[in-house]
Amino acid sequence: MKDVFEYVERNREKYIRWLQDICRQPSVAAQNRGMTEAANMVEALIRELGGEARQVETSGFPVVYGEFQGDKKTTLSFYNHYDVQPEDPVELWKSPPFGAEIHDGRMYARGVADNKGNLIARLAAVDAYMAVRGELPLKIKFLVEGEEEIGSLHLREFVDHNRELVEADGCIWEFGYKDADGRLQASFGVKGMCYVELVCRGANTDMHSSNAAVIENPAWRLIWALNTMKSPDEKVLINGFYDKVAPLTEADREALAGMDYDEEKTLKKFGLDSFVLGLSGMPLKEKLIYQPTCTVCGFKSGYIGEGKKTVLPSEASVKIDCRLVPDQDPHEICALIRRHLDEYGFSDIEIIQHTMTYPARTPLDSPLSRAVLKTAADIYGAAPTVKPMSPATGPMFVLCQRLGIPSVSVGVGHFASNNHAPNENIFIDDYIAGIKHIAAIIEDFPQRMNETAI
Amino acid sequence: MKDVFEYVERNREKYIRWLQDICRQPSVAAQNRGMTEAANMVEALIRELGGEARQVETSGFPVVYGEFQGDKKTTLSFYNHYDVQPEDPVELWKSPPFGAEIHDGRMYARGVADNKGNLIARLAAVDAYMAVRGELPLKIKFLVEGEEEIGSLHLREFVDHNRELVEADGCIWEFGYKDADGRLQASFGVKGMCYVELVCRGANTDMHSSNAAVIENPAWRLIWALNTMKSPDEKVLINGFYDKVAPLTEADREALAGMDYDEEKTLKKFGLDSFVLGLSGMPLKEKLIYQPTCTVCGFKSGYIGEGKKTVLPSEASVKIDCRLVPDQDPHEICALIRRHLDEYGFSDIEIIQHTMTYPARTPLDSPLSRAVLKTAADIYGAAPTVKPMSPATGPMFVLCQRLGIPSVSVGVGHFASNNHAPNENIFIDDYIAGIKHIAAIIEDFPQRMNETAI
Repeated sequence: MKDVFEYVERNREKYIRWLQDICRQPSVAAQNRGMTEAANMVEALIRELGGEARQVETSGFPVVYGEFQGDKKTTLSFYNHYDVQPEDPVELWKSPPFGAEIHDGRMYARGVADNKGNLIARLAAVDAYMAVRGELPLKIKFLVEGEEEIGSLHLREFVDHNRELVEADGCIWEFGYKDADGRLQASFGVKGMCYVELVCRGANTDMHSSNAAVIENPAWRLIWALNTMKSPDEKVLINGFYDKVAPLTEADREALAGMDYDEEKTLKKFGLDSFVLGLSGMPLKEKLIYQPTCTVCGFKSGYIGEGKKTVLPSEASVKIDCRLVPDQDPHEICALIRRHLDEYGFSDIEIIQHTMTYPARTPLDSPLSRAVLKTAADIYGAAPTVKPMSPATGPMFVLCQRLGIPSVSVGVGHFASNNHAPNENIFIDDYIAGIKHIAAIIEDFPQRMNETAI
Repeated sequence: MKDVFEYVERNREKYIRWLQDICRQPSVAAQNRGMTEAANMVEALIRELGGEARQVETSGFPVVYGEFQGDKKTTLSFYNHYDVQPEDPVELWKSPPFGAEIHDGRMYARGVADNKGNLIARLAAVDAYMAVRGELPLKIKFLVEGEEEIGSLHLREFVDHNRELVEADGCIWEFGYKDADGRLQASFGVKGMCYVELVCRGANTDMHSSNAAVIENPAWRLIWALNTMKSPDEKVLINGFYDKVAPLTEADREALAGMDYDEEKTLKKFGLDSFVLGLSGMPLKEKLIYQPTCTVCGFKSGYIGEGKKTVLPSEASVKIDCRLVPDQDPHEICALIRRHLDEYGFSDIEIIQHTMTYPARTPLDSPLSRAVLKTAADIYGAAPTVKPMSPATGPMFVLCQRLGIPSVSVGVGHFASNNHAPNENIFIDDYIAGIKHIAAIIEDFPQRMNETAI
């Protein structure tokens, strides 16, 4: 692969420019901002590299589908997304969120780690491989959706209507990071998600808070309702919440034992003294990887500006995300929340469903798993950290496991990439290494498939 | 008084214009918006009417002090404020918050009821009385502060340094309303207030919510802390909170029994089916008038925009106002909250003090009380509803009771004036009646003082 790697190095500036170009295009799905422009850029770049590309309509934002022909025996797909999270709070960014400025070897931009860096690195790998070798040893598909950050609302619809576009022997998933020690992580599954908003309404208008002696306060009601859902010992109290959590196997524990998680660096990074409940070691890792969560992502009621305002709010709402593990079912969890609120006398609290995503896992010994681990060891000089499952969430189940497609996550982010937070960034060197890694997987994966066939 | 009342009617348009002029000047103390302009307008108007006026500096916004000479035996003071609440949420206003437009006999503006309508009505009364009679039967003082809506932060400082400006035989307090039946209310006290903000901090940055499995969530912590402070039966659980609440006397109960509170109209106005705990009748009135509150006025944490964001917040904060009754002490209450949080393991939660106001009451048989009640019956054709205490709050104690000055609240607002809420308004007819009422008090009060002297 030395020839391809050298080509990547020689074209470093070009690949950086590609990434800056796309990062400078805001594409916030939650706000429908710049989505068409971003989709068009991705489509155009695939075409420029000699692939076929088109935008497949959905009821939401289109999926950009790209195809590069090669040896037909094996197909590798890349799942990515062109949408990004909102950039607020903007005032905490040290450079413009859509400036893609490079400082001290890092590029800073909303979406540069999640997930434009990976998307462009994979396209760059295809570009480099074809430029040097002329032909690909497998067929490559790009599935680039525009709704990942808002819960992949129409990805299932896309898959159901375009099954032939999705079929593959393996799929490289959208995200991937180096851990706190600088070792690449490869992860083999994702948590699911049940993201809901609970809305509690009181009077038909905000009013002077002197009325609070006799008029019910929806903020207090929501606080009391939430208090019944999770206790300070971090246990989710929603009846039945843990019923479908798959018990850990011996293999699960082994994988967990082999997984690095740098507690000290993590705590230092976030300015904390300890993890929840003072956990560490295996119990901490087990909670991170194999346990579901119930998280208040946002709470809003009444006057939230500067200074004081003596107001009795007319409404209170909370955004909650439950990260789910196999074999929890997001729709079941949502129904359990409804039943729980009803049982505790909060049947007036409305539930708005935002995201329902199933958890998913891939075996560590699939051909793709082996190709990714082997090549990573070559490129990065050390075996990657194996994460049997990521604590993050994605629509992996609907795109892969449901169709029998193994999927693995590796990418160009790092421990402090600040996904979903101010000053999102990647190291330029990680970006270049990521391009090489994908090029090596393109070479290696068909051979692993052959081994399996034999 | 017929001559004065006729003058008021003939000059209706002039007095309406005065009110529109001042309402069109935003003066939001919480945002330091238009404060100088508003103070200058008040000072200029007092001078225009022949009074002496000046702005007395404080460490905050100045107090506009005005004086009209007259018979020296009696002094009546008016306490008002030129600041207003913020106008948000602006999108719910049907006309511009600072437009002072008149529709269907009402003027709509932020501050028109609270409290510019009363301020200008009182000045108009002085104007009319002097225009017709030439001379005032008492000395009149105007004390117009600029920080009422942010807790009268420097009023005590003003009183301590300007005792001679504050001395009076009685004070007409800033607010006053008609009840749901259209009857004028006169109230003889105010609740106190302990307004605090509780801030709970977690990691040093918002982060991807997948971390919530192992990183503590300040929003959950604040919910758990709040849950220990008030229970769904509306009882405040802060240890010692009720200790200083004065027991009700027979006179208190009598006053309460005579006080109108139209439950049906109140519920209908706010689109509700019932009051807290299903209360009605005397228990409801007792809770409204004589019981302290603990109200969540605002709660903010994490992502509160449209759509969803999977974020683990780094901070959560809640604004709480406790309305206090005699003989609760706001500083003691704040200390109790601190002790409570510490006892329940929330010593990390910071308390920011916003407002500390003592509760206050005036006897129903003071000369001013009798003057207000007698003249109201004449002007409005029916005895006013007596409210032994208002559920609202003001710096009455520091300005009046502490110095032995009786104070009574009457004014030009009504049941649906929407103070502190969108579409604040008063009826023009109530405004004109309010001018006449004050003119009548100016005539009657010195006589009541003479009765007492005899």
